[in-house]
Amino acid sequence: MAKDLNISLLLDFYGSMLTEKQRRIVEYYYDDDLSLSEIAENEGITRQGVRDFVKRSEGLLLEMEQKLGLVRRFREMMDGLQKIDEAAGRIREYNEHYIYAREIDESAKQILEITRRLCE
Amino acid sequence: MAKDLNISLLLDFYGSMLTEKQRRIVEYYYDDDLSLSEIAENEGITRQGVRDFVKRSEGLLLEMEQKLGLVRRFREMMDGLQKIDEAAGRIREYNEHYIYAREIDESAKQILEITRRLCE
Repeated sequence: MAKDLNISLLLDFYGSMLTEKQRRIVEYYYDDDLSLSEIAENEGITRQGVRDFVKRSEGLLLEMEQKLGLVRRFREMMDGLQKIDEAAGRIREYNEHYIYAREIDESAKQILEITRRLCE
Repeated sequence: MAKDLNISLLLDFYGSMLTEKQRRIVEYYYDDDLSLSEIAENEGITRQGVRDFVKRSEGLLLEMEQKLGLVRRFREMMDGLQKIDEAAGRIREYNEHYIYAREIDESAKQILEITRRLCE
């Protein structure tokens, strides 16, 4: 069973939609990197039982992404904010070196504050 | 039964997580503003059946928002992008009137393009 690293990200977004037990087992497997056998021991179920839980939960997470596209949208947003941040940085730098207009500096600083807050 | 206008917004985000029939009935009710009786006739079920469908679907949509907070996050993001857009607009305007540095204008324009694309 190959570990899909995207699952960890999907888990951040959609973990709250799984049952408590599903989430716990998938987190052991993906976030804490426990083996199927270790999880089986922790949970008092068989190794095959753990595997089924993980597979079923993976399927649910992938299905939710297919329906809601939250991770895809989030990445697009982060990518756009990154580019805005860079452009505002260039404005501040140019302004600082060649012009120094307080109005421009303040607006550029405000943009940087917002992009950073939204990217947190 | 009072109509909750937020449900229409939740439906935009989470509608794909409902069954086809749930979505269709809630859309008739919230987006197309049909009455319970009209929907009952369309669907060949009782008025009470429609009411139960709507209530159950509303509950599911609200539960998803409570768990995923997609609408809340989306609003925060739109609010931030709106403020970025305004700040970039001020930079362009100031630059145009008092300075005219091509570098600043280009970066500000780039920011405006991104915010508008992300807000679409």
